[in-house]
Amino acid sequence: MPDPRFFARKGPFSLAQLAEVAGVALAEGVDSERTITDVAPLDKAGPQDVSFLDNRRYLGDFAATRAGACVVAPEHAGRAPAATAVLLSDQPYRAYALIARAFYPPPAVVAGTAATATVDAAARLGPGCRIAPGAVVEAGAEMGARCEVGPNAVIGVNVVLGDDCRIGANVSLSHCLVGDRVTIHPGARIGQDGFGFAPDPAGHVKVPQLGRVVIGDDCEIGANTTIDRGSGPDTVIGANCWIDNLVQIGHNVQIGRGCILVAQVGISGSTRLDDFAVLGGQAGLAGHLRVGAGARIGAQSGVTRDVPAGETWAGYPARPIREHFRQLATLARLSKAKGTDDG
Amino acid sequence: MPDPRFFARKGPFSLAQLAEVAGVALAEGVDSERTITDVAPLDKAGPQDVSFLDNRRYLGDFAATRAGACVVAPEHAGRAPAATAVLLSDQPYRAYALIARAFYPPPAVVAGTAATATVDAAARLGPGCRIAPGAVVEAGAEMGARCEVGPNAVIGVNVVLGDDCRIGANVSLSHCLVGDRVTIHPGARIGQDGFGFAPDPAGHVKVPQLGRVVIGDDCEIGANTTIDRGSGPDTVIGANCWIDNLVQIGHNVQIGRGCILVAQVGISGSTRLDDFAVLGGQAGLAGHLRVGAGARIGAQSGVTRDVPAGETWAGYPARPIREHFRQLATLARLSKAKGTDDG
Amino acid sequence: MPDPRFFARKGPFSLAQLAEVAGVALAEGVDSERTITDVAPLDKAGPQDVSFLDNRRYLGDFAATRAGACVVAPEHAGRAPAATAVLLSDQPYRAYALIARAFYPPPAVVAGTAATATVDAAARLGPGCRIAPGAVVEAGAEMGARCEVGPNAVIGVNVVLGDDCRIGANVSLSHCLVGDRVTIHPGARIGQDGFGFAPDPAGHVKVPQLGRVVIGDDCEIGANTTIDRGSGPDTVIGANCWIDNLVQIGHNVQIGRGCILVAQVGISGSTRLDDFAVLGGQAGLAGHLRVGAGARIGAQSGVTRDVPAGETWAGYPARPIREHFRQLATLARLSKAKGTDDG
Repeated sequence: MPDPRFFARKGPFSLAQLAEVAGVALAEGVDSERTITDVAPLDKAGPQDVSFLDNRRYLGDFAATRAGACVVAPEHAGRAPAATAVLLSDQPYRAYALIARAFYPPPAVVAGTAATATVDAAARLGPGCRIAPGAVVEAGAEMGARCEVGPNAVIGVNVVLGDDCRIGANVSLSHCLVGDRVTIHPGARIGQDGFGFAPDPAGHVKVPQLGRVVIGDDCEIGANTTIDRGSGPDTVIGANCWIDNLVQIGHNVQIGRGCILVAQVGISGSTRLDDFAVLGGQAGLAGHLRVGAGARIGAQSGVTRDVPAGETWAGYPARPIREHFRQLATLARLSKAKGTDDG
Repeated sequence: MPDPRFFARKGPFSLAQLAEVAGVALAEGVDSERTITDVAPLDKAGPQDVSFLDNRRYLGDFAATRAGACVVAPEHAGRAPAATAVLLSDQPYRAYALIARAFYPPPAVVAGTAATATVDAAARLGPGCRIAPGAVVEAGAEMGARCEVGPNAVIGVNVVLGDDCRIGANVSLSHCLVGDRVTIHPGARIGQDGFGFAPDPAGHVKVPQLGRVVIGDDCEIGANTTIDRGSGPDTVIGANCWIDNLVQIGHNVQIGRGCILVAQVGISGSTRLDDFAVLGGQAGLAGHLRVGAGARIGAQSGVTRDVPAGETWAGYPARPIREHFRQLATLARLSKAKGTDDG
Repeated sequence: MPDPRFFARKGPFSLAQLAEVAGVALAEGVDSERTITDVAPLDKAGPQDVSFLDNRRYLGDFAATRAGACVVAPEHAGRAPAATAVLLSDQPYRAYALIARAFYPPPAVVAGTAATATVDAAARLGPGCRIAPGAVVEAGAEMGARCEVGPNAVIGVNVVLGDDCRIGANVSLSHCLVGDRVTIHPGARIGQDGFGFAPDPAGHVKVPQLGRVVIGDDCEIGANTTIDRGSGPDTVIGANCWIDNLVQIGHNVQIGRGCILVAQVGISGSTRLDDFAVLGGQAGLAGHLRVGAGARIGAQSGVTRDVPAGETWAGYPARPIREHFRQLATLARLSKAKGTDDG
């Protein structure tokens, strides 16, 4: 059970309530009034807990679980123990996520401005906002309803936040427009100057960075991630993007909807990701490229060319993944055949 | 046109004024009194805007531009549309940068110390400094004229800043001496302990880190970048270096003048870069190496040996770039020839 | 000599005192009452300084040193100049570290809560704690004796710190339990949500992250490093781990005792490091792996499989290091033989 010092649990909920929350069906014969008090993994769950099966690898755990209820795809439902009530879903992990959120919703924002916060008289706050101790909201900044600005975070001049944004501790925002329901984790830096200058041995000359960062609704931005503003065009993050920690996004980058960027990714200036692209951890993209819709880039890959929509690339430099693996295999074989004098 | 919420425009300026600002000549026959109100890219500029051509790739845009004026190298001046006044420069991007800075200078520092800032009585501030809300300036810290310390930034004990420094929001500085006109972007960490300890299974023993970080004039340090202080010698960043976001610089690293470090670079302890070295994004350098003057290291490269001055290296491990490309080509060819059973 | 603005020196100490501090023996005939005033490297030390020899590469410097005293392994003691008093140790660098700490101990924590700090009435502070200007200690947070919370750092709700912790400027902690004598450098982010969500083109669904971060005693966490809390299980950092700057540690990662993680390493979710594993800079580890006790991973390596205890792996993807080097050599040879038409 989660540490109650950090997590406040709601519930209990009946199976009928959970099915509704998750948008799933109860299997035939399930007692819809049975109550469930918590979530737990298959191997730890007891009769009061709901769990889920999303990966065939855990079929054994599923067959042996003591969970009171479990979300599972229809084709595996038959393997459920007799005492486990089955909730049927084609996306069991998604359904589980919704159920877990019912038990552990994000804490409600407690409206109010801390005595040690600094809110400029020319800032505009929607109803229900919390401005935590030490936070700074500069002149002209504007935020919608129920936003939370964490301790020692800084919302710069004229920055705009939509409704229900969560800005973590020690974040700094400037020159940006942020949509609704955006979560920005601690230490993220958004809107500072891009890396734009005219190189010159006598002294590099800075080029004013005159664009903004525009972030769509329902995005999540990781801790200590940096997103530079555009140089003239904007840097754009589409709705529903998930960006992990320590990611670097250069000026003028355009990211479509629903993209996933794993930790420590770096994207150079003016590169564009189309919708639902996925970048593995530590991948690096050169500038002025286009990664097509739904393309997937392996961890640590170095992308130096456009990647067509839907393809999976990996390697340094990145290439189609079959080609990447073939080259690895070739080198391994040649090295075994000829390399005995090197080892 | 840049968003006026974030960018205040100066001007208009006459072509004569712009030519003077940029140190360039007007082409023959240009009306030097013609006024220009803004900057814009070639394909968006109108008759009131000045643009630039720096890359042959955009010659078509240049020939078709509606820009009122354009900075261009002499050899391309003949392609300018009749309505476009030509400013001649051998470094058009540099000239454009200077012009753009005339229209959009960095906002002047508004002197004053915020009520919620904490400035130790034993700190010394030059004239015209701004200490933003929540900023902390510790005992003995010293700064020159017209410095700006952003919201919630921390200037540690006895840190020294020159004139006209811009310290971003949530920055922390300690154990460092910083020159004039240095810009440090939000969240950068400068002067903390280096990674120095005597490894020991019974408990690693920390080695006191007794050096400083010394940063020359006119440097730019990126958001969330980390620069550790020296272990005994100093960590040194030469004048006019541009360091991007999320870069790691280990203890005792010595960086010459005018070096360029792209985002997410990592430099291990005691490595030295000579003047004007350039490191591509995510490149990593082992410790105790020397990268010669003007050397260029490709993105994501792993440098494990000294790199001679003027050379371009890439790869993992890094090697001269022709060798790197030759090896990539060799592997691709062998893989095609022999690899059909792997694909 | 270290800059006295930043480093306060103790001493002088007699050789007898230094030998005791370091747990080493004086060579025969050494005057144990001789006093030493500072530490210095072999090539800079004078008659008042103590130095050390830990690497055969510096034997020449050792033979020529003017140091008043030197810690050295017994087998090299005979090479000491006549005027240099010898302290004998099998771990000279460790002994030196202890001596250097005697001269330059970490500054004592000056107890007190700054006027501009915010300490919730429901937080509990042990005796002798310092809460620096702008720091925020939220409700229910608890810390032991002599902790220091740096300027503008944030200690979140119900976070627990042991005794003698040093929390740097602008750090944010939440959902974590921290042991004794832990140092967390500026800008580190610990305890935020892991990267957990059910991907869905209609809108990724966040999975509540219900674990904590648990950090053992005597750890060092680098600047701007990020450690996400567990998703249900905890993220665990064992005692005596040294983690450098800009490292990313995903949710549910388990790190044993005494591990060393060099800068910019990234560890994906649920991966486990056994005791004393060492990860070179920028190495990346995929999720759900196990790296055995004492294993060493080369810089920039990409680990995609379990690594057996005690082995050294490198490469992309990582493999045993001899195999890695053999493959590099094979490719170099083939490229020279066949690649002349590519260069």
